[in-house]
Amino acid sequence: MDYNQRSLELHYKWRGKLSIKPKPPLLTKEDLALAYTPGVAEPCRVIQREPVKAYELTGRWNTVAVVTDGSAVLGLGNIGALAGLPVMEGKCVLFKDFGDVDAFPLCLDTQDPEEIVQTVRLLAPSFGGVNLEDISAPRCFDIEKRLKELLDIPVFHDDQHGTALVVLAAIKNALKITGREPAGTTVVISGAGAAGTAIARLLNAAGLTVIVCDRQGAIHKDREGLSPAKVELAALTNPQGRSGPLSQVLVGADILVGVSGPGLVTGDMIKTMRPEAIVLAMANPEPEIWPTEALRAGARVVGSGRSDLPNQINNVLAFPGIFRGALDVRARDISQAMILAAAAALADLVGPYELGPERIVPSPFDIRVVPRLSQAVAEVAKREGLARV
Amino acid sequence: MDYNQRSLELHYKWRGKLSIKPKPPLLTKEDLALAYTPGVAEPCRVIQREPVKAYELTGRWNTVAVVTDGSAVLGLGNIGALAGLPVMEGKCVLFKDFGDVDAFPLCLDTQDPEEIVQTVRLLAPSFGGVNLEDISAPRCFDIEKRLKELLDIPVFHDDQHGTALVVLAAIKNALKITGREPAGTTVVISGAGAAGTAIARLLNAAGLTVIVCDRQGAIHKDREGLSPAKVELAALTNPQGRSGPLSQVLVGADILVGVSGPGLVTGDMIKTMRPEAIVLAMANPEPEIWPTEALRAGARVVGSGRSDLPNQINNVLAFPGIFRGALDVRARDISQAMILAAAAALADLVGPYELGPERIVPSPFDIRVVPRLSQAVAEVAKREGLARV
Repeated sequence: MDYNQRSLELHYKWRGKLSIKPKPPLLTKEDLALAYTPGVAEPCRVIQREPVKAYELTGRWNTVAVVTDGSAVLGLGNIGALAGLPVMEGKCVLFKDFGDVDAFPLCLDTQDPEEIVQTVRLLAPSFGGVNLEDISAPRCFDIEKRLKELLDIPVFHDDQHGTALVVLAAIKNALKITGREPAGTTVVISGAGAAGTAIARLLNAAGLTVIVCDRQGAIHKDREGLSPAKVELAALTNPQGRSGPLSQVLVGADILVGVSGPGLVTGDMIKTMRPEAIVLAMANPEPEIWPTEALRAGARVVGSGRSDLPNQINNVLAFPGIFRGALDVRARDISQAMILAAAAALADLVGPYELGPERIVPSPFDIRVVPRLSQAVAEVAKREGLARV
Repeated sequence: MDYNQRSLELHYKWRGKLSIKPKPPLLTKEDLALAYTPGVAEPCRVIQREPVKAYELTGRWNTVAVVTDGSAVLGLGNIGALAGLPVMEGKCVLFKDFGDVDAFPLCLDTQDPEEIVQTVRLLAPSFGGVNLEDISAPRCFDIEKRLKELLDIPVFHDDQHGTALVVLAAIKNALKITGREPAGTTVVISGAGAAGTAIARLLNAAGLTVIVCDRQGAIHKDREGLSPAKVELAALTNPQGRSGPLSQVLVGADILVGVSGPGLVTGDMIKTMRPEAIVLAMANPEPEIWPTEALRAGARVVGSGRSDLPNQINNVLAFPGIFRGALDVRARDISQAMILAAAAALADLVGPYELGPERIVPSPFDIRVVPRLSQAVAEVAKREGLARV
């Protein structure tokens, strides 16, 4: 099926994938007086006296801003804010249908980090959380960090942490299948953008040894000309200080995670990895190496970003449950511990009789995903003192 | 009925008066591939090549931002952005139910005009129009003016122009009842805030003679210490340069429009007006003079802002139709001519057999209001070259 053409036709039919649905009836003057003036004055007064009541008297408790600057949309690159709107609307559809979260797309007409930070900061009163989306690296790191400091609602860059969460869950299960423990297992990540960086940090926090490669090869402490974000990455990863191109550091590695570009990995490269290698080649739509080729070269477990192949590493497994949990307890933040707990819950959803090389993550339509993740996230938020209720 | 208490109870029940309703189904992997990746890439590419296609491929054509800084909410004053959220949600409910417009509430955590302008400017790609709401005068004048210059989508401060539009329609019909023409008819406006200023400008454009009073009395060219906004007003109004308190300039006037505060007008003041006086006392919830008292003092036609009395001067008669018309033709702006046309259409909806001292504006639930206004608005937009389609 030609998804592109069919999707375009449907988009012309939908004319926007979201609509606003009012909850109150509005059929009489009395309805008007209750949903609007003069009755509405009373909830306003209550919130003015006690701002936290906004979580009970408005939709703030369930509303998330999906914010982009259009600088790194899907695999399309920097197509700008307006052209990114169909993706943001789609994201909001997933938020609602998977997580019952009311999300609204905000495409900002700027790619200046300072303007993005200020705009999102000023928008905060209407929202219980902010999902940053498709903002290019390294700008996304600083934007997210500053917003997390400025705001007391969760700010979550899904391309970073949603991806990292699902990758960690997939690796947890792949480790079980191949009889490995996190300690002593080496992961090579191809790609040092938003996703690669976040995956490196999260896998490192989960106890794996990580080496990140960008176009110039392995990132290590002694490499010249590293950006500030990569200096931080070098301090956290590659403890042996290995250098050289991807093909060189992949030798003897246990796991390859690809978040880079199509065709960067060959079967011969896979053959140099340890036996029972795990390969998650997630470049979209065309992966770093096709799963069948990786399997032929000896990999034991393979995954990709594609919905038409087994083991789809898909953010939709993460963000609805993460935000559902964070919103349910009115969390002030989404912490690394909350993300780690969600990854563990996601991995655990694949039971022992189901677990196998072609089933390392649940289906996105598995109805247990959001309840389990949100519960795990909410529990950690409470334990860490990040929950308001 | 105690609207306040009942409304508060309902607000606790609703927990937000809006929800997001996705249009596409999302039951299969194929649905996902069409509403989201990979299919969504194609509409993105089309919009990147041809930005105007965003009006066909996204919800932009029907989406309006309801923006406030919480500085002048209802009659509550400067209660701040968060406390204003119940009102903005209510406004969005009215937008949807009356105009079938998808409106979303954005409460900005700033009262700095420059920050408000910049924030709204950067938000524009997601929206087909901007409704400014409950922003205090005189800041609202400059904010609206600058945004109208910066953006090529309609920007409309409803407290100004929505109110002015309905007042003009009401006065048009009251003139018919009392056998007057606009020329030679004098209106005294009590209140020089957002509404008072916009009413003065619109009634002036419609050919009436206008005198505006603030707390210090009539605004005239020779008065000392006028703000820039009031200097502009003085140039446009009060051709005879009358001075003195409201009670003084009201002597011999034909019409009183009150957008000030409760109880500022007495029956004795009404008695000094011309016979068959028209009194629209719109302070909320308590008017400048109660309609019954104005009638006892000899007024012929009276109106107020209250839903429990005849002739409610209510913005809901204006903004849904104004925006419906502007969105239908993808207007770049909402001009004064579009507002004048809407006022004429609104007045004309009260037919000759219906017109009377207790019926100078249609009911807000009159189903003809939005179609008639939107048609009038769209026609003028086309004539003025402000329509994109």
